[in-house]
Amino acid sequence: MSDPTYGGYFTSSELTDEQVDALEARWSPVAEDLRGLADLAIRSDVGADAVAEARRHLAAAAEILGSAAPEGPAGVVRNSTGRSWQWGNAVVGQRNAVAPPMRVQRHDDGSTSARLVLGNAYEGPPSMVHGGVSALLLDHLMGVTASSMQKLTMTGTLTLRYTRPLPLGEVWLAGRITDDTGRKVTVTAEIGGADGAAVEATGLFIVPSWSVDPAGG
Amino acid sequence: MSDPTYGGYFTSSELTDEQVDALEARWSPVAEDLRGLADLAIRSDVGADAVAEARRHLAAAAEILGSAAPEGPAGVVRNSTGRSWQWGNAVVGQRNAVAPPMRVQRHDDGSTSARLVLGNAYEGPPSMVHGGVSALLLDHLMGVTASSMQKLTMTGTLTLRYTRPLPLGEVWLAGRITDDTGRKVTVTAEIGGADGAAVEATGLFIVPSWSVDPAGG
Repeated sequence: MSDPTYGGYFTSSELTDEQVDALEARWSPVAEDLRGLADLAIRSDVGADAVAEARRHLAAAAEILGSAAPEGPAGVVRNSTGRSWQWGNAVVGQRNAVAPPMRVQRHDDGSTSARLVLGNAYEGPPSMVHGGVSALLLDHLMGVTASSMQKLTMTGTLTLRYTRPLPLGEVWLAGRITDDTGRKVTVTAEIGGADGAAVEATGLFIVPSWSVDPAGG
Repeated sequence: MSDPTYGGYFTSSELTDEQVDALEARWSPVAEDLRGLADLAIRSDVGADAVAEARRHLAAAAEILGSAAPEGPAGVVRNSTGRSWQWGNAVVGQRNAVAPPMRVQRHDDGSTSARLVLGNAYEGPPSMVHGGVSALLLDHLMGVTASSMQKLTMTGTLTLRYTRPLPLGEVWLAGRITDDTGRKVTVTAEIGGADGAAVEATGLFIVPSWSVDPAGG
């Protein structure tokens, strides 16, 4: 580990797996509440008085949650059993209301997949998933596909081909490695809906030099 | 307008500009409240009882906002003065807590730019902007760059080159048209921070056949 950045990639945690489970069970519903509220804030047509009353409740909730809240991002945390989590991740963060959240499945052959529902907050063209949201989800799934416990990768280049509009609602993603030269991993992936693939992606993922163990690990 | 889809791209609204202003003034703060809560839900370490109390407030707010809330996405709306808005857009939607929101500036030479702060909810690598979030913002800015009141475009292909990590915090974007053949518009753009550009993008944007006015408009 020739670069001190690597030591900082994962924050060490003293939490046991059971404690992590308990915290996820405590906080995931809060993020889910906020996802529902984000959807309502787009759709609702209640009047000014009702909005003011709702905002008083939101302020009260913020005061409670903010009474003990360290500054700064969540980072990527790992405990002594090797379990890692990133509660604030923009795509998969379970405590992050901005994240759908996506859950990536890894299969025995190295391929990956995900299924999720994209609601009103992910709109681009009317009733359609924002093209940039497709890029966001593909980038994340492809990064997971390229990486492993032994290999940390970063996006090098990403090429996306949009072949048809993708309606809001249930979507699927699938990714696989098509080339791996050690320091460079090529991944292809798609996102689509009931009508088939909507966006095809190819990505080159790089193993950062600072993450290469000079001892040959 | 040979395809009925086009007629549905914009939803017509009877709202006056003043009414639109008033609704934006009513709802933008709600989205901003929810952005703050999303940040707290990532950072807070209050206990189970406090979380339960906060969730009661969130449920109360949801009941108020949900008491009159038509189903479905916000779409893209236009009124009789030609003003258009998309309150639910995943990148620029003012009523969308998932959106940062970004505001794209158009310059006289046809170029575009934006400045915004990306907080903890947009994290990928520790303390860094998620690579997919950069793709999301670039796709949107580039689509705006390629489009105009007279020309509606959709993303055809998008190629992103990641040159360095982008820290969370204030970021800038800049885009410009590099080629325009009428039905195909090429746009280049960058996103970066204080240290310079972090991601360079090239996109090919297509004018959908259904949006081409057969009368020659």
